[in-house]
Amino acid sequence: MAKDNQVSITVVRRLPKYYRYLTELKEKGISRISSQELSVLTGFTASQIRQDFNNFGGFGQQGYGYNVEDLHRELKKILGLDSNYNAVIVGAGNLGQAIANYKGFEDAGFKVLSLFDRNPRVIGLKIRDIEIRDIETIDSFIKENNVQIGIITTPKESAQSVADIYVKNGIKGIWNFAPTDLVVPDNVVVEHVRLNESLFVLSYFLRAMNE
Amino acid sequence: MAKDNQVSITVVRRLPKYYRYLTELKEKGISRISSQELSVLTGFTASQIRQDFNNFGGFGQQGYGYNVEDLHRELKKILGLDSNYNAVIVGAGNLGQAIANYKGFEDAGFKVLSLFDRNPRVIGLKIRDIEIRDIETIDSFIKENNVQIGIITTPKESAQSVADIYVKNGIKGIWNFAPTDLVVPDNVVVEHVRLNESLFVLSYFLRAMNE
Repeated sequence: MAKDNQVSITVVRRLPKYYRYLTELKEKGISRISSQELSVLTGFTASQIRQDFNNFGGFGQQGYGYNVEDLHRELKKILGLDSNYNAVIVGAGNLGQAIANYKGFEDAGFKVLSLFDRNPRVIGLKIRDIEIRDIETIDSFIKENNVQIGIITTPKESAQSVADIYVKNGIKGIWNFAPTDLVVPDNVVVEHVRLNESLFVLSYFLRAMNE
Repeated sequence: MAKDNQVSITVVRRLPKYYRYLTELKEKGISRISSQELSVLTGFTASQIRQDFNNFGGFGQQGYGYNVEDLHRELKKILGLDSNYNAVIVGAGNLGQAIANYKGFEDAGFKVLSLFDRNPRVIGLKIRDIEIRDIETIDSFIKENNVQIGIITTPKESAQSVADIYVKNGIKGIWNFAPTDLVVPDNVVVEHVRLNESLFVLSYFLRAMNE
């Protein structure tokens, strides 16, 4: 596979969208798609789409378009979805429990091994078959299990110290839901889910439409 | 306020980030900030920041920078956060319950009036003081209440029919968590929260870092 450490974040963020459409096309039994048809589906220009895929070796054929199954498989590899990942969650409130309970992630190869919290009222409870453990036990848990992803669903005040725990224990990927920035070493990836910001974009447009 | 129907979505998506930083600065009692300092905080160039604010009238003064309280107040207005919004949620699983339970939204002026579901095992339950009602009653509920925002936390197969219910009942803003596109009239805003896509960006980088 072509070296992709030069690929910009803007391109990277489009890849899961392509993957979603390719998955639907594959489910519908469609075997072939042109960049023009993908353009209609995704809203990106055909030229942008071809450029994006060319970052990774170019999968289409002039005059043919793309083979859906091949492109789907390539995107799956590029997105790392042909691997399985173990995750833990710190913050066992509603949001943490919702993430633990979301079967769609497991179907995509992401397995939540445990939740952690400091609230004695939730420690010991189970979400499906996933236990909520005392945060005091997280270091040994991560040591004893092969955990790649640390999820943060705590209030913002606790998020950095949770990130520090993850980093200390060798976790390289953090999925953060707390509405704050995190400081981590360069070899750790943080992906933020900005729920507040998403909602505020919605209210921007509601206001703008009414004026 | 300057007419802002020409403002691009890329600018709009930066506004909540500015708002988040301005809120923290305000909480810290900082009264003044330069575009250069904002640049360090946000990661955007000082020039980009000034351009973004100029879309809305320009709030700074050459040589002075920005008054934090004024800028915060302006952003709050621009984002529509000086209004209150009523919302309903369809899909009372863990994610819907997490959204209903998230006090941060209420602090920002977004009040969830009710959840709806078709599952008899959750109908009648309460999340804090918010009831889960039978989806059959949603038309009359929206008629009798002043609801601006419809939230979708159903599986993807149901999302379009829920959007149709919202549109039919005059709701103008939809916050969608289901991993699918939605078809709505032009005068209805849809903001998607793409949890799967966020997680797949994370796995992209985990894979890329390991090769």
